[in-house]
Amino acid sequence: MKTLIKNGTVVNATGRGLADVLIDGEKIAAVLAPGANLLGFDVAANVDRVIDAGGKYVIPGGIDAHTHMEMPFGGTQASDTFETGTRAAAWGGTTSIVDFVVQYAGESVLERYAAWQEKASGECAIDYGFHQILSDVQDSSLTAMDELVNEGVSSFKLFMAYKGVFLSDDGQIVKAMQRAAQNGSMIMMHAENGSVIDLLVQQAVAAGNTGPLYHGLTRPWQAEEEATHRAIMLADLTGAPLYIVHVSAKQAVAQIASARDNGQNVFGETCPQYLYLSLEDNLAAESDEWGRFEGAKWVCSTPLRAKAEGHQHHMWQSLRTNDIQMVSTDHCPFCMQGQKDLGLTDFSKIPNGIGSVEHRMDLLYQGVVDGKISLERWVEVCSTTPARMFGMYGQKGVIAPGADGDVVIYDPNGHTSIGVGKSHHMNMDYSAWEGYEIDGHVDTVISRGKVIIDDSAYLGTKGDGRFIKRGLSQYLI
Amino acid sequence: MKTLIKNGTVVNATGRGLADVLIDGEKIAAVLAPGANLLGFDVAANVDRVIDAGGKYVIPGGIDAHTHMEMPFGGTQASDTFETGTRAAAWGGTTSIVDFVVQYAGESVLERYAAWQEKASGECAIDYGFHQILSDVQDSSLTAMDELVNEGVSSFKLFMAYKGVFLSDDGQIVKAMQRAAQNGSMIMMHAENGSVIDLLVQQAVAAGNTGPLYHGLTRPWQAEEEATHRAIMLADLTGAPLYIVHVSAKQAVAQIASARDNGQNVFGETCPQYLYLSLEDNLAAESDEWGRFEGAKWVCSTPLRAKAEGHQHHMWQSLRTNDIQMVSTDHCPFCMQGQKDLGLTDFSKIPNGIGSVEHRMDLLYQGVVDGKISLERWVEVCSTTPARMFGMYGQKGVIAPGADGDVVIYDPNGHTSIGVGKSHHMNMDYSAWEGYEIDGHVDTVISRGKVIIDDSAYLGTKGDGRFIKRGLSQYLI
Amino acid sequence: MKTLIKNGTVVNATGRGLADVLIDGEKIAAVLAPGANLLGFDVAANVDRVIDAGGKYVIPGGIDAHTHMEMPFGGTQASDTFETGTRAAAWGGTTSIVDFVVQYAGESVLERYAAWQEKASGECAIDYGFHQILSDVQDSSLTAMDELVNEGVSSFKLFMAYKGVFLSDDGQIVKAMQRAAQNGSMIMMHAENGSVIDLLVQQAVAAGNTGPLYHGLTRPWQAEEEATHRAIMLADLTGAPLYIVHVSAKQAVAQIASARDNGQNVFGETCPQYLYLSLEDNLAAESDEWGRFEGAKWVCSTPLRAKAEGHQHHMWQSLRTNDIQMVSTDHCPFCMQGQKDLGLTDFSKIPNGIGSVEHRMDLLYQGVVDGKISLERWVEVCSTTPARMFGMYGQKGVIAPGADGDVVIYDPNGHTSIGVGKSHHMNMDYSAWEGYEIDGHVDTVISRGKVIIDDSAYLGTKGDGRFIKRGLSQYLI
Amino acid sequence: MKTLIKNGTVVNATGRGLADVLIDGEKIAAVLAPGANLLGFDVAANVDRVIDAGGKYVIPGGIDAHTHMEMPFGGTQASDTFETGTRAAAWGGTTSIVDFVVQYAGESVLERYAAWQEKASGECAIDYGFHQILSDVQDSSLTAMDELVNEGVSSFKLFMAYKGVFLSDDGQIVKAMQRAAQNGSMIMMHAENGSVIDLLVQQAVAAGNTGPLYHGLTRPWQAEEEATHRAIMLADLTGAPLYIVHVSAKQAVAQIASARDNGQNVFGETCPQYLYLSLEDNLAAESDEWGRFEGAKWVCSTPLRAKAEGHQHHMWQSLRTNDIQMVSTDHCPFCMQGQKDLGLTDFSKIPNGIGSVEHRMDLLYQGVVDGKISLERWVEVCSTTPARMFGMYGQKGVIAPGADGDVVIYDPNGHTSIGVGKSHHMNMDYSAWEGYEIDGHVDTVISRGKVIIDDSAYLGTKGDGRFIKRGLSQYLI
Repeated sequence: MKTLIKNGTVVNATGRGLADVLIDGEKIAAVLAPGANLLGFDVAANVDRVIDAGGKYVIPGGIDAHTHMEMPFGGTQASDTFETGTRAAAWGGTTSIVDFVVQYAGESVLERYAAWQEKASGECAIDYGFHQILSDVQDSSLTAMDELVNEGVSSFKLFMAYKGVFLSDDGQIVKAMQRAAQNGSMIMMHAENGSVIDLLVQQAVAAGNTGPLYHGLTRPWQAEEEATHRAIMLADLTGAPLYIVHVSAKQAVAQIASARDNGQNVFGETCPQYLYLSLEDNLAAESDEWGRFEGAKWVCSTPLRAKAEGHQHHMWQSLRTNDIQMVSTDHCPFCMQGQKDLGLTDFSKIPNGIGSVEHRMDLLYQGVVDGKISLERWVEVCSTTPARMFGMYGQKGVIAPGADGDVVIYDPNGHTSIGVGKSHHMNMDYSAWEGYEIDGHVDTVISRGKVIIDDSAYLGTKGDGRFIKRGLSQYLI
Repeated sequence: MKTLIKNGTVVNATGRGLADVLIDGEKIAAVLAPGANLLGFDVAANVDRVIDAGGKYVIPGGIDAHTHMEMPFGGTQASDTFETGTRAAAWGGTTSIVDFVVQYAGESVLERYAAWQEKASGECAIDYGFHQILSDVQDSSLTAMDELVNEGVSSFKLFMAYKGVFLSDDGQIVKAMQRAAQNGSMIMMHAENGSVIDLLVQQAVAAGNTGPLYHGLTRPWQAEEEATHRAIMLADLTGAPLYIVHVSAKQAVAQIASARDNGQNVFGETCPQYLYLSLEDNLAAESDEWGRFEGAKWVCSTPLRAKAEGHQHHMWQSLRTNDIQMVSTDHCPFCMQGQKDLGLTDFSKIPNGIGSVEHRMDLLYQGVVDGKISLERWVEVCSTTPARMFGMYGQKGVIAPGADGDVVIYDPNGHTSIGVGKSHHMNMDYSAWEGYEIDGHVDTVISRGKVIIDDSAYLGTKGDGRFIKRGLSQYLI
Repeated sequence: MKTLIKNGTVVNATGRGLADVLIDGEKIAAVLAPGANLLGFDVAANVDRVIDAGGKYVIPGGIDAHTHMEMPFGGTQASDTFETGTRAAAWGGTTSIVDFVVQYAGESVLERYAAWQEKASGECAIDYGFHQILSDVQDSSLTAMDELVNEGVSSFKLFMAYKGVFLSDDGQIVKAMQRAAQNGSMIMMHAENGSVIDLLVQQAVAAGNTGPLYHGLTRPWQAEEEATHRAIMLADLTGAPLYIVHVSAKQAVAQIASARDNGQNVFGETCPQYLYLSLEDNLAAESDEWGRFEGAKWVCSTPLRAKAEGHQHHMWQSLRTNDIQMVSTDHCPFCMQGQKDLGLTDFSKIPNGIGSVEHRMDLLYQGVVDGKISLERWVEVCSTTPARMFGMYGQKGVIAPGADGDVVIYDPNGHTSIGVGKSHHMNMDYSAWEGYEIDGHVDTVISRGKVIIDDSAYLGTKGDGRFIKRGLSQYLI
Repeated sequence: MKTLIKNGTVVNATGRGLADVLIDGEKIAAVLAPGANLLGFDVAANVDRVIDAGGKYVIPGGIDAHTHMEMPFGGTQASDTFETGTRAAAWGGTTSIVDFVVQYAGESVLERYAAWQEKASGECAIDYGFHQILSDVQDSSLTAMDELVNEGVSSFKLFMAYKGVFLSDDGQIVKAMQRAAQNGSMIMMHAENGSVIDLLVQQAVAAGNTGPLYHGLTRPWQAEEEATHRAIMLADLTGAPLYIVHVSAKQAVAQIASARDNGQNVFGETCPQYLYLSLEDNLAAESDEWGRFEGAKWVCSTPLRAKAEGHQHHMWQSLRTNDIQMVSTDHCPFCMQGQKDLGLTDFSKIPNGIGSVEHRMDLLYQGVVDGKISLERWVEVCSTTPARMFGMYGQKGVIAPGADGDVVIYDPNGHTSIGVGKSHHMNMDYSAWEGYEIDGHVDTVISRGKVIIDDSAYLGTKGDGRFIKRGLSQYLI
């Protein structure tokens, strides 16, 4: 299959230009000056398909480096399977995800990794990689880290919260970081002080403060700032690169910025929810249907923060200044019926998570329309930096010869209405983004040379997606 | 003329990959997967020349955004003319410069601009653009700013030092910044507190401290930090983008980093001399030939700083973390005989300047070899960011179809010895970089499709270079 | 005259305690455990007067280290003479002022100093010292600095604003600082960037924005922060101690705090107006009588700042944390009729100044009542630190044997209503503090052993006050 | 007993002055202008004893707020008993200590408190108070906090290190802080990340790095900075006042300074060892007697830090600027023979602690001689601030009527040689300060009116000291 995308504006992280893009098989074969002609050779005449992208953006497919498909959590599991979740991602212009293998304390890392490979195999609509969660750091886990790096899993996530489930103590974190400093892998951190949060939650529930709003109030910014600072100091001690997931507090950003000004390899990811949603507007929301439990739709961790404190504003600014390097979704969907409602009388029982894998590209593009970030920065934070950060660049994250033919044609004159019954393809009975209107549209999505979304139709097949064997981070400073 | 560069490793700011590059006429026509073949079409057979870049880096030509060719200064003028200086630049892998039009107080900006256009016209070996110096900010200067933006001169340099020559007072600076905030142009700033420096110089000379070392000692870091902070505050007040030239003090970097963390469009440039040279090693140097006057070779402003204070180390780190965005040379060469020696008995009479336009690409590449920056960052700080910062991206600063055919083939297995009688082509009777050895070599330099350096031969002609009509900065956050 | 103040709570900067205070002649002779008895000796029986201070605070007399009595300014002069102003001060519990000798550019420092000594001599109700303003820094000014230090004038004020009137350029400032570093004197700084302010004022007036509100809007916080930072850098360069007068912007406080964290002798003074008044409430005020010109009552420099930006809050906090060391008034009163109204059609013609010398002790005590500062901190910022900062401690600023008998008996159960026709004794036709109610009252004021205020009566005589020959600062770190 | 100290220079925290001090019974009765005469009453003739302090400093007795007399630790106990330790303190001009009641996890706080009261009762040479250590935070511990505040124990120490011995987790810390915020007590924190340190120690020992130097190398500054930051965030969350004990890292100071600039009640204590001793000079020391084990003499936690990193310099600077508020000793002596040598083959077995209670006043006075701090600051950091910080001011920490007659007469012309066989009175077989020479001398020490040290003789009796019932902190901002 040979495809020529002609007349589009190719946007990469550093700039844009009119160019034709030729995909031959699974790979980009050439980027050409517009005209579909090379030294007299008629390119269009020699391909299977020509797509006219005139007036549209041609960008590297989105990479969502933080998803949790069918993740088991608190007796239930995330409502999107690898099948439904990756298909929804495709609809939204995302052509790669990096999901998390879960290892709980006492389990074997490698066994869990094998189980996850099996779960995903043959299910995905788009390419997928894995990060490995380490919930305790056994000696065998350290060995497994080396093996996994060779397998193409070059990033390891640790938690400073969720005692008895995910939490590693600081000594365990240091051990994993020491190994990462040796083998070149990346440490990812859920940076919240779980010990403090557990106490505040227990006190809130004991005081009868059981609604979703208290999810936010019992996870104060200090708990995030503190853990972020702590992780940075441990990274400084060991020399490991550090990537803070789902940063939501401006004070946590300040810690990351300061670490980078000091020359440390410390990075931060934020998510669409921290750019648009808030404690006041969402966690405190009420509705006819769900009453004061409405806020459960937006119970995620780190929590939505108070808009009045300026976190949203600061998060957009930090995206601009590269104090925050990229945007993932932390896609972890649960339905209201039968899942979120487990916490109807106790917010601490609400499964934590928001589903956004389908809308990240659109929501961030709206930031371009609104003047919050540049077009190039959109591509950078949604695709190029994720690829570089996690060792996929060259294959992913760029429109260049030799790269996978993962290309999205985005129409700045199109429009997308988000919501159930509208653009919604995730396996959720509600949308966290109901009512959002986007001044742009994902027209065509090509994954390794195959058109999987076109004219608002899904043309792919379950199992199209392949495992991405990642290298070491290409973003280290 | 059609040229194919095959088998090389194309390096852009975000990554690298094996690719062939086709130049057709003055422009890059295509970047192709390696193999010199497109869908069966034999590319190599259809071009005039094939260059094998196997094992070598293929990079966008260097852009030196800070040069002063034949600049009049203190009764003499910089020893490189547009002819000699741009030819030397070409030898070193630089294919574009941005030079400065000088307007002194009372003069007409537009007249001076016309004079500089005339001086450069027909002289240059490579493409050249202009920044405009404003030494006073008359009402007509403000009007001229708008006109020059239309002419492709979208950046204006002001001075906080050199009273009676270049200095603008803070009110004048604000006026220019207000206009820049309106017309979108960039304010460049020589950030040193001239009033303080003038006093310290006068006191040093009065005390008989007349050697070159006192050039450094009378321009303390406080004078640079202070002016940098002041410029940032004025920019904050007006909303103008700000670019600090030749940053040498780590404390000045901290001011820039802090401004960016606050969301300001503030940028910093450093120069090779601040990465490698120092007060102790150079300004304090003595020799048989020049005795204690040897240090005059490295009298430039801002001055070389004390290595013991950690400025060099911090400057490399800041390049890594993007607290400093790019590297220019501030090329302003003077010969020792007849020029520098004007200050033999009084350092304040020594013409200020170092010549480096030929060696910037090599010196920074050595930073890659030494593990100070990545290969991609080398391309970014030497070419891509200069292009984006000053409105040339797309045409310059990237290997992509539609861009000018400005390409350098750099051999990481080559070697370059810097020094008079060795690689030296600048019109200077000494080299500020005598004895530096580089683990790499500029093999081939192509300027708008024409090979001008090859096999250590200059193949170009005076006047090859054309004026670059620049747009507004593409780097604003 | 021997006076015993018995049963009061003596409050010093570090704590409080019940004690009797014996004043013998002009000096405090003893501080005794309560009971008016020493080893069987009946103290009360051996004094001329016994004052019962039961239930009241006995504090060292207030020291206002920043006043401008009868200061010539813009064709008029401050409406309080040394006579009226110091008498009003006494009414408010202030027993010492330090006023400013004005030297304009070109004038002789020592001649001006002599003129000011003459102006004040025989006029004052309370003791007075002088700071010396230097408006240019001639060689003779440097010599005069040394002479004045010997005369008891150990602090020199420079201006970074008011070009052509007071402004010193940075080189001149450095010269004065170098001398201060040698002779141990203190540099005081009016830290606002006058060059920028002059431009903004001119632009505002040209645009027809002529009301008092524009006084504030044309003196933005950036102009203060910038100048504060600049002064700090120059002090760092020279080693001089630095005291920033009338700090009003939180960003300027941050600069001072940072300098001190770096070990510099940098201090900040704020004034009651920056703790209570604001751009919104005062500069923007309108009234029936004055219409939009009402705000002229509060035109002072640095200006009142926007409450919405949090300056007031930060200023109180900084007083608590000692990031701001003391509170003076910058007392510089002008009447609305015939003085302030010079600027009726152009705010830049409004004489700058607010009169507060009478109310500082009360206004700051209200901060104690409101929980903003502790009782001890009140004494510290209003009396002890001013004494230490400006070389008067031991004689002034403390209740201790050997100190001058400058004592205030303050009744925490009393009440003071501020306003014209109420507590007002300053020579102004309005009060900047009209309507302020204070939960405390100055009952008795003793100056060098003489009761000058008692039972709301003024018992003193013009000329009671004597010149204070000050030593070097006792507050340097 | 009535004592008159005449002709001395009384030094308080804010200044100094010539004055006579009369002590009547246990209390200071009066501070008088020099002359031993009050309104004709001959004071000297009416007292039991007159001490001529001409040419000497008369200061409030030293307060050492951090000692560990006979503390059980690792199977041994601190070698000074309450008897020997407080007597040694008296020799050195310290008239009050605050020691720590130890509660280990699972024990009853109040029972332990009672046990400590019993241990100290009738043993001490000088007055003593208690802080309470909380090693776990049971519900009964929270109740005990309230009761102890009423008992005069208003400060509670928690540990972020020593797992299984002292360590509280962050949730427990928050619980104690919440209670402190309610009852007004002070939280004291041993701020080191124990989890990280335990790992590093285990790794070092496993690697055969068993000498005392590794005590320092396994407790890096990051572990202190991190825990300090964490404690500050938890205090911010709860509103509790926080006092960091034994601060040794400059980075930890920066955290404290930053918290105070933000308006938090956060304070820091340092110790003489962090002002004078270092990793290089002491932990790495070798001797004929002890070989490489010599460094064990200075094994304490937090550890001595690298002089090359500038911690010592910064600690003195921070004392000057009040970023560090006071100096205690953390007196916790162990003999080399039979105690320290428990760790002969494993540094982690060396009992942690240095004995300095006798030398604090002298060592800090040497800082006055060396120009590091002022005379007044010496009194402030050694006596006045400890009294205010821990609720003793008025009774202790000041020379004022009503205060306890705790007075030291210090001779600036005297000399003190520190070392075993010289000034040493602590129950240790070595001195951590061997060879230090002090340009001053403690001549006379008076405790509650009784002369206990005079003419280098101890005149006191075991049991002279009484329990100090402390109030709440008087130092909160």
